[in-house]
Amino acid sequence: MTHTTVPAYAAPSAKAPLERITIQRREPGEHDVLIEIKYAGICHSDIHTVRGEWGDDGHFPLAPGHEIAGVVTATGSGVTRYQVGDRVGVGCFVDSCRECDNCKAGLQQYCTGELGNVGTYGATGRDGEITQGGYSTHVVVDENYVLRIPDSIPLDRAAPLLCAGITLYSPLAHWQAGPGKKVAIVGLGGLGHMGVKIAHAMGAEVTVLSQSLRKQADGLRLGADHFYATSDPATFAELAGGFDLIVNTVSADVDINAYLGLLKSGGTLVQVGAPENPQQVASFALITRRLSLAGSMIGGIPETQEMLDFCGEHGIGADIELIRAEQINEAYERVLASDVRYRFVIDAATI
Amino acid sequence: MTHTTVPAYAAPSAKAPLERITIQRREPGEHDVLIEIKYAGICHSDIHTVRGEWGDDGHFPLAPGHEIAGVVTATGSGVTRYQVGDRVGVGCFVDSCRECDNCKAGLQQYCTGELGNVGTYGATGRDGEITQGGYSTHVVVDENYVLRIPDSIPLDRAAPLLCAGITLYSPLAHWQAGPGKKVAIVGLGGLGHMGVKIAHAMGAEVTVLSQSLRKQADGLRLGADHFYATSDPATFAELAGGFDLIVNTVSADVDINAYLGLLKSGGTLVQVGAPENPQQVASFALITRRLSLAGSMIGGIPETQEMLDFCGEHGIGADIELIRAEQINEAYERVLASDVRYRFVIDAATI
Repeated sequence: MTHTTVPAYAAPSAKAPLERITIQRREPGEHDVLIEIKYAGICHSDIHTVRGEWGDDGHFPLAPGHEIAGVVTATGSGVTRYQVGDRVGVGCFVDSCRECDNCKAGLQQYCTGELGNVGTYGATGRDGEITQGGYSTHVVVDENYVLRIPDSIPLDRAAPLLCAGITLYSPLAHWQAGPGKKVAIVGLGGLGHMGVKIAHAMGAEVTVLSQSLRKQADGLRLGADHFYATSDPATFAELAGGFDLIVNTVSADVDINAYLGLLKSGGTLVQVGAPENPQQVASFALITRRLSLAGSMIGGIPETQEMLDFCGEHGIGADIELIRAEQINEAYERVLASDVRYRFVIDAATI
Repeated sequence: MTHTTVPAYAAPSAKAPLERITIQRREPGEHDVLIEIKYAGICHSDIHTVRGEWGDDGHFPLAPGHEIAGVVTATGSGVTRYQVGDRVGVGCFVDSCRECDNCKAGLQQYCTGELGNVGTYGATGRDGEITQGGYSTHVVVDENYVLRIPDSIPLDRAAPLLCAGITLYSPLAHWQAGPGKKVAIVGLGGLGHMGVKIAHAMGAEVTVLSQSLRKQADGLRLGADHFYATSDPATFAELAGGFDLIVNTVSADVDINAYLGLLKSGGTLVQVGAPENPQQVASFALITRRLSLAGSMIGGIPETQEMLDFCGEHGIGADIELIRAEQINEAYERVLASDVRYRFVIDAATI
């Protein structure tokens, strides 16, 4: 297999700051598209991974980035879905087994095949090579794992939809947020702000549950109907039994039973941010009110396309802060300090 | 309000053995039916309650029993649903607010009104009186909280359907057990044996997960397709990722994450037995496979009738051991020792 050398921002080793290096991209195969990356979002997962906090065995140097928006600049001979010039995106995975029940059902994120869901960076692909992510100028991806970005969404604001957007869209769609439903979004960060926009566009009555009222004006501007501080114990009394669906984007440990108490009977609390420690769940609450505690992770290819089309129709993009590549390490510190409204996006032209 | 004195088996105080006493039943009001109790099942909840283990504030003497089967012997002037001679049942509650969203939706078990769901014993009814349960010869119940027992189910085998039956039917129906679905029932006791029969009749492929293989022959006879011992660690490896739905009837503490590992992605584990201690749930498992941990409690009046009709059509009754009233205390000890196949039922003629 022949390769092309392209620039990227990568961590040379675990916990080291990211720096400009060159990485290899394969020449587009029969079913591949070559994408000129225009923008790449910064996801909290990128930071966990390059710092080796998720127990990765260290495929370094590693270029992270799985919120990729760009333009097709070449296509393999067998490509039928995309043409040069198309505005496209790549999310959290670039391949999967394609044969298991989940892959066949378009739920590639839950692939159970031997290959598994091949992460956009740091994973071992079908060809045995380690994948490199979107903090780069180009990427080569099988057309079946490429998404189309509607013209109505600027590419920089589209990039975060590929992870943050679908991470919220999928549970909101699966658990049927919509007119007549009361939905709470816990945490107003990169994930949460997408949840507010999408749930509002779906027609649900949206409440933000944030640690403080600091972002209240933002939350209401983004589409929330109500905004409460979880640091105020009165919030839990006032909202008790009020929600059909709660999506928790916070990965810090929280008193999960307090949040379960905010559900109507029959309601569902969905975790999309993963707390490090096990959660102490009082079964009695689940039983006596038929509650569900669930989890959800990104979305499959068909649902991700559905999400992009939905966002296109509703004029939804992420609220972003565009940065130059040399600001990545500084941006990481600000992500960890929750000091971003609401997603950093790297201008790939500066890499 | 005038009352009639009837015999009952009751606990004179918390933890005391049950003994024969007399209790008061109200004269049937306009919408009440008077039921001559023929049989009453013994539920583990009865034992918890009369022993004061559920933090009850002690309405003693207390006659337990919420698996009641009998015959209507009188009706109030406004009763339209039942006639003298009808074969009827009463389950875990005898009234509810009738005005909240859940009551209006027929989900009286999750009543959120001020009156709440009025338990069949030990609860304060609309009239301010403490309810007394089915270990008795007669009971007076509002016709809206009375169920019709199909002719095809013998009354003694029907009694346990009113709690054990609906406790399993409701989650199996709600989470859509049926053809093509793989369902596991954890625990083969009074609840579990009903789960096996009902899930099998719904057309699901049924696996029993029991502590040992001691009850294997029974499980297969009851309708299970497979039977595994949870004491064998190989079970968890062999069955990993195999079930659409798991209903856990065991209220002892278990490693809930081990059972979550047995679900297919998208699957649901439903608790119907309440462990005393909080469960340690690893959110990562929920998230990476879109799993749900849920709970479920009995069923509403329409669903309980649906369950009875379903059991009537499929020839389903509980497997019971019929006892005389003076054997109740001995039966309690055997329930606590899991020494019953699969439900004790009291012959009310012996009270």
